[in-house]
Amino acid sequence: MARPSDLDALTATLPRLEPGHVWLVGAGPGDPGYLTLHAVSALSQADVIVHDALVDERIAALARPGARLEPAGKRGHQPSIAQDTISTRLVALAREGRRVVRLKGGDPFMFGRAGEEMLALAEAGIPFRVISGVTAGLAAAASALIAPTLRGINHAVIFATGHGAGDAPPVDWAALAATGQPLVIYMGIHQLAAVAADLVAGGLGPDTPAAVIASATLPEERVLVSTLERIADAVRKAGLGAPAMVIIGAVVAMRARLGGGDGP
Amino acid sequence: MARPSDLDALTATLPRLEPGHVWLVGAGPGDPGYLTLHAVSALSQADVIVHDALVDERIAALARPGARLEPAGKRGHQPSIAQDTISTRLVALAREGRRVVRLKGGDPFMFGRAGEEMLALAEAGIPFRVISGVTAGLAAAASALIAPTLRGINHAVIFATGHGAGDAPPVDWAALAATGQPLVIYMGIHQLAAVAADLVAGGLGPDTPAAVIASATLPEERVLVSTLERIADAVRKAGLGAPAMVIIGAVVAMRARLGGGDGP
Repeated sequence: MARPSDLDALTATLPRLEPGHVWLVGAGPGDPGYLTLHAVSALSQADVIVHDALVDERIAALARPGARLEPAGKRGHQPSIAQDTISTRLVALAREGRRVVRLKGGDPFMFGRAGEEMLALAEAGIPFRVISGVTAGLAAAASALIAPTLRGINHAVIFATGHGAGDAPPVDWAALAATGQPLVIYMGIHQLAAVAADLVAGGLGPDTPAAVIASATLPEERVLVSTLERIADAVRKAGLGAPAMVIIGAVVAMRARLGGGDGP
Repeated sequence: MARPSDLDALTATLPRLEPGHVWLVGAGPGDPGYLTLHAVSALSQADVIVHDALVDERIAALARPGARLEPAGKRGHQPSIAQDTISTRLVALAREGRRVVRLKGGDPFMFGRAGEEMLALAEAGIPFRVISGVTAGLAAAASALIAPTLRGINHAVIFATGHGAGDAPPVDWAALAATGQPLVIYMGIHQLAAVAADLVAGGLGPDTPAAVIASATLPEERVLVSTLERIADAVRKAGLGAPAMVIIGAVVAMRARLGGGDGP
């Protein structure tokens, strides 16, 4: 990549991460090329990087020499550190005067629990900032050549999490189905059969196009297209696992018309 | 920003923009720090950059010397170039053998008409790629310290466009309201009174918290918080204009508890 002097001038103006501050930083969908300049800058400044399990080693390699990387892995259906423990740890590191980056996959706000961490930091009086990232749902759509908004087809798109079992309130899939708008579902692959059944019960046609994009933007990415009533079986037969994004709606069907793309 | 050799190694692996290819690239919400490494790489390779009106001059400055910048401005309520004209232009530039970047604000898929351009390119046999960006809705939420997803409050978030007047199908605001999920509305400021009335008619409480973030992530950013029934008046009195993002839902109320943040 060329390094014009304008890029140096630009990056010199990015904000400083001060000792005792915490930045909640989105690492993007996986491919390190989706890191933002703010994220690269944050990684280069942090004393400690508290990171999710899904963060790529090429991203971790951008930490400055001597920085400490702390895993705070919380991945679906695997042993995980309680959210309170992570928030408490961020507060403690800030109070030690560290420059702290909390690195999250995708965008910190898209089902990444940044809200809870913000509240804990604010209550402790710790200065913080949220650095948005490319959310995995949109990057998965781009990789799969599925435009989640199409003029004449829809005016809204719904991002939901399928990983809400046990939480209150439960997801009202029928209400989401009733909107007729495309759905992009995060962490939905493990409960896909139940979610699909709820959506059909809520009024979506069983032949509504549905896609699963596993490991979006990474070399091992796989895309599977089916219908709402068949997608869970198809995923099982194909052996796809997390991390994966589910996209449901008429917009998925457009993919077949896009054979001219470079692909992912 | 430090420039570790790992960043050089990483950027060297980013894909090449070939002559005759078109990349649809998200420029992020406005602040050039939200450019991705993919976007910076694309700008440094393009022969021609066909860009939206909202693209910042510091971003345009990252084009390689000798590259041509072509405005394809389509901004709400201003004279605009028809979508067909832009698609035709992209195809023509590619057929001339140019390396073409189509630079869009935010993410290309979030009401950015990338779907239509993808279809036109595919039909013409032009190889293309979509480079996701940080969508303005999430960056506006981060700037305003409004977490659009909060455990225990919601499991979905709806991104909608308020700029659908005259299009078919119209936005069914009542169905979106019935989900009880937060709404992030793009290009919604000009029709805010009508949208708010439709949402109240659809069952959202008139005292539902609502926020408008104008010029999110830019120095001139302004945040206004009110209620659904008062937000349109408040926007008028404050003199806020486009570009602006509207966020509606209980998640907005959390902002008051976050006084410890660095702010935007």
